[in-house]
Amino acid sequence: MKNRFCRFEAEGAVRWGIVKGTVVHEILPDPFAAFELTGFAWSLKNLRLLAPVKPTKIIAVGVNYSDHAKEFGKAPPPEPLIFLKPPSAVIGPEDPIQLPRASRQVDFEAEIAVVIGRRTQKVTRHTAEKYILGYTLMNDVTARDLQQSDGQWTRSKGFDTFAPLGPWIVSGLSPRRLVIESYVNGQRRQSSSTSKLIFDIPTLVSFISHVMTLEPGDVISTGTPSGVGPLRPGDRVEIRSPAIGQLINSVQAKT
Amino acid sequence: MKNRFCRFEAEGAVRWGIVKGTVVHEILPDPFAAFELTGFAWSLKNLRLLAPVKPTKIIAVGVNYSDHAKEFGKAPPPEPLIFLKPPSAVIGPEDPIQLPRASRQVDFEAEIAVVIGRRTQKVTRHTAEKYILGYTLMNDVTARDLQQSDGQWTRSKGFDTFAPLGPWIVSGLSPRRLVIESYVNGQRRQSSSTSKLIFDIPTLVSFISHVMTLEPGDVISTGTPSGVGPLRPGDRVEIRSPAIGQLINSVQAKT
Repeated sequence: MKNRFCRFEAEGAVRWGIVKGTVVHEILPDPFAAFELTGFAWSLKNLRLLAPVKPTKIIAVGVNYSDHAKEFGKAPPPEPLIFLKPPSAVIGPEDPIQLPRASRQVDFEAEIAVVIGRRTQKVTRHTAEKYILGYTLMNDVTARDLQQSDGQWTRSKGFDTFAPLGPWIVSGLSPRRLVIESYVNGQRRQSSSTSKLIFDIPTLVSFISHVMTLEPGDVISTGTPSGVGPLRPGDRVEIRSPAIGQLINSVQAKT
Repeated sequence: MKNRFCRFEAEGAVRWGIVKGTVVHEILPDPFAAFELTGFAWSLKNLRLLAPVKPTKIIAVGVNYSDHAKEFGKAPPPEPLIFLKPPSAVIGPEDPIQLPRASRQVDFEAEIAVVIGRRTQKVTRHTAEKYILGYTLMNDVTARDLQQSDGQWTRSKGFDTFAPLGPWIVSGLSPRRLVIESYVNGQRRQSSSTSKLIFDIPTLVSFISHVMTLEPGDVISTGTPSGVGPLRPGDRVEIRSPAIGQLINSVQAKT
């Protein structure tokens, strides 16, 4: 069933809800269990949306669109190339991305992100979708200079605020043709679709589940298409997918 | 104050305790808060020790002993080289390390691991020790062949069971001269000390805290000295440090 699950703050508490039009209907306990409507509702504009999930891990995929591989002169990998972003990097819609002093070039990277619904291990690609709660958007913010000098990508992709996530999780979608776009200050910079992924979403979930047990709420970010570029203080960066929504963050000067 | 904090299972519940001799005295709520003795105690041999912490993230450090750097023909890095292991890889004392089908060479790597006691961000190396709860042992199990072919180390170091941790957390130690050793089937394979680290423990905590916020229970594994080597089904691998204790795990055939 198609639902838009959000996590939000209202009247001093963190809550889960379902978005219908401009209204958020609270649910209990959360979308990872059999849930019920509490009967309470808020207007979307009167609450603060949080990152739609607190993952135990974020598994991201490198070089998974061939146009982006070309952009960096890399051959598409023979198997999915995975890396981790720390949960401490997660921020929600409208939270600012903070540029760290250690880097001179911080890039945006628009990605479709999978949210795992049920614990799983060693699932086949044919049954992988059963373990997916839904889809959200991630900006895989990357300190490009440090990515190159470190070799390992952990630091360059792991700074606090480098994993904007949101605005909510949409269930009941097919993962085959999700459009993914980014805009900086209103100008379109990336535009592609999951139909162009080198390794599609069921393949990624299956591959990763053969390495590590996936927990409810874990996020798999599926890779970025060509068109990535640097962010500057004061920029407003937007990740957009018509079937999912839009994730907007501002950019703050070095802290 | 010097304490040995353990997490254990007894009478169907997960509990925290302080080890004194052969007796475990239960505490509440946990070592990350002001805690009290509950008055209940168990004999060490009547309970099952669990991994002494459930970290939100495990930050590990590559190439941090120069003899290990030489062993792999690598130059010591100009700054600490960090990577992440997923929480799903954690196992406790006596839990089996499972060799994955995807790899033909899985190595042990003995490491001293720091357990963070208090949330911290951008701490100096001079005050870093205040944020450390104590020290434990980690086996940074690594699929050496996949580490080389993937380039990124996430998969090769991220399989389930690839982060044995324990046996407990010892507080009140100086991080300057902690001996670290490994034994396979009783034979010594690695032997060094944190006095030989390229980047010492306060430097690592400071460096990492300038990238990502550290949470109570987060683990920083400080790197392995020379002498690493492959594990085979039926092996018994032991990580040892006289000031901390010993972490023993068996090795199971491909699953």
